[in-house]
Amino acid sequence: MKADRIHNFNAGPAALPLPVLEEIQESFLNFAGSGMSITEVSHRSKWFDDVINDAVVRAKRILKLDDRYHVLFVQGGASMQFCMIPMNLLGAGDTADYVNTGTWSTKAIKEAEIQGKAIRVVASSEDRNFSYIPEGIAFNPNAVYAHITSNNTIKGTQWAQFPDTSGVPIVSDMSSDIFSRPLDVEKFGMIYAGAQKNMGPAGVCMVIIREDLLGRSPKDIPTMLRYSTFAEKNSMFNTPPCFSVYTVQLVLKWLEETIGGLDKMAALNRKKADLLYDYMDQSEFYRGTAEKNSRSLMNVTFRLPSEDLEKTFVAEALENGLGGLKGHRSVGGCRASIYNPTPLASVEALLDFMKTFERKNG
Amino acid sequence: MKADRIHNFNAGPAALPLPVLEEIQESFLNFAGSGMSITEVSHRSKWFDDVINDAVVRAKRILKLDDRYHVLFVQGGASMQFCMIPMNLLGAGDTADYVNTGTWSTKAIKEAEIQGKAIRVVASSEDRNFSYIPEGIAFNPNAVYAHITSNNTIKGTQWAQFPDTSGVPIVSDMSSDIFSRPLDVEKFGMIYAGAQKNMGPAGVCMVIIREDLLGRSPKDIPTMLRYSTFAEKNSMFNTPPCFSVYTVQLVLKWLEETIGGLDKMAALNRKKADLLYDYMDQSEFYRGTAEKNSRSLMNVTFRLPSEDLEKTFVAEALENGLGGLKGHRSVGGCRASIYNPTPLASVEALLDFMKTFERKNG
Repeated sequence: MKADRIHNFNAGPAALPLPVLEEIQESFLNFAGSGMSITEVSHRSKWFDDVINDAVVRAKRILKLDDRYHVLFVQGGASMQFCMIPMNLLGAGDTADYVNTGTWSTKAIKEAEIQGKAIRVVASSEDRNFSYIPEGIAFNPNAVYAHITSNNTIKGTQWAQFPDTSGVPIVSDMSSDIFSRPLDVEKFGMIYAGAQKNMGPAGVCMVIIREDLLGRSPKDIPTMLRYSTFAEKNSMFNTPPCFSVYTVQLVLKWLEETIGGLDKMAALNRKKADLLYDYMDQSEFYRGTAEKNSRSLMNVTFRLPSEDLEKTFVAEALENGLGGLKGHRSVGGCRASIYNPTPLASVEALLDFMKTFERKNG
Repeated sequence: MKADRIHNFNAGPAALPLPVLEEIQESFLNFAGSGMSITEVSHRSKWFDDVINDAVVRAKRILKLDDRYHVLFVQGGASMQFCMIPMNLLGAGDTADYVNTGTWSTKAIKEAEIQGKAIRVVASSEDRNFSYIPEGIAFNPNAVYAHITSNNTIKGTQWAQFPDTSGVPIVSDMSSDIFSRPLDVEKFGMIYAGAQKNMGPAGVCMVIIREDLLGRSPKDIPTMLRYSTFAEKNSMFNTPPCFSVYTVQLVLKWLEETIGGLDKMAALNRKKADLLYDYMDQSEFYRGTAEKNSRSLMNVTFRLPSEDLEKTFVAEALENGLGGLKGHRSVGGCRASIYNPTPLASVEALLDFMKTFERKNG
């Protein structure tokens, strides 16, 4: 860590790999010999074509996506997807299943309902405050899709395995764990993810959609809300969010060339999370809030013996160069978000701080 | 100009003020002492609050907006506004007027029609290839709004004065001339502008909307497509495109503090455009394509005696450090986009090149 930078445990926007930030900084006044900043380059230029094409190729290679899958860059975040998904995929008489595992699932469900779409909530973990991932769900075999949230940033839960939907394509919000582990892509009809957690800055959402779902959109959907608009124009029907796409490209390059791919990334993520969970499990001071078999490897949520201690913990951590440890404003407590870019050294620094804090206050 | 940077005449994304780019570069690893990049800072932090609030305050001060106007930051570009405007402002039985002055107006009209909204095209300049701005238009006094495109980047035309709509609020796409001149704001119900021409990088659209129009949205509009969602949450219902908003803030600061406000900006823009138009008017080699009283001060479109010469012109200009001079792919010819950030020195360099090129080839 550079002397003047902190260990960043923000939930999103979140830490980015330092080498990526340094590359952006270094070339910021003259991108790839263009004589322009990346923010000044035309999206219809060879320079930007190379950026967006490389980002798409890398995303497909990393996730082992075959040619049926399109990788799109859409604005509006995952929240825009909550409305675009039912708008595009559900026509009259169609139905879809939703699993409710927390705040973001709840919002996705709400946006389908606002449009009067026939969706069914087939499982929910609300009964135990969203502290677990439901199992043994009976999905509707006639559903067009089954929607899940693969990782729940606020409650700190994550699907360890993806459910058996009897062939119904899964549509998953992966905003907070895309590219964090290998996937059995066959199960998915669509994967979407706001970039600002695992792969870039805010301002762009990656949408991976399978060919057969692309064709479902009704004709009266506005152009900018149709997936086919993005698929047909390589995400450049209009000006894309160039800087955000560029940063995503650099993060994917870092993931492939510096980390060494998804298996290595997954192992590193497991190691980071285990460091924290193992320590918490033997501590009577820190208490994890997610049920053990539903724990997120991305967002480690925990409580201290009192809210006062939690406040002191967050404040003293920041004084010690550890930022972003406050839990989401809707649930309180503490949270360490340790996405792909968070280095092991940051987690080790946090662990040291947690131990010291427990000794002083336990 | 720094030795390795070019004179950038791109139509968008376009040139940004060099001091703005330098400030971003310098603080890119540690924004405002946060120990994080601006791309890593939480949008729920004091750091980002200061950024977005300052951007809003400056936009309101520069345009002299009173408290009835909200300044919003929305994703999806002006193209998303083409659909959001009729979706939010036109209920059953409502009608709106549209003036067609080129490619972007045509797209705005199409998006209203896709939704089956009752709109009327009250004037068009298509009869003379969109080379002029229509006058003496009979607007419908019962229209909810009158839509215009204040500057037409592709055809190089601009409304010199805004039309008398008998009190019907104007809704204007100002993507390519917002903040380029003082406005009589009273006439406008809404102004929207993709940032990537006059005020920032791609990835954010500024929407200025008057209180009375905010209340019109039907209840079944998805949350992310409602203007009130953005107005109620200071554009942070979900994660905004932080980096783009930050750059807009810096450009507005530059406009106020370095340029000295809108009157000075307008005078400088007039001076830049006059340099090119005055020269073209006395030349028999270069021919402006817009009718004289409809000429844009932002996009100077022109032809040379042959397409071959145009190709040579664009290529030799680039060899001489002058980029982005090719006309839009839909119309051909040449175009110099000289938005707010384009320095006078760039226009002077272009003028010198044009003179030399005419001497050699005229």
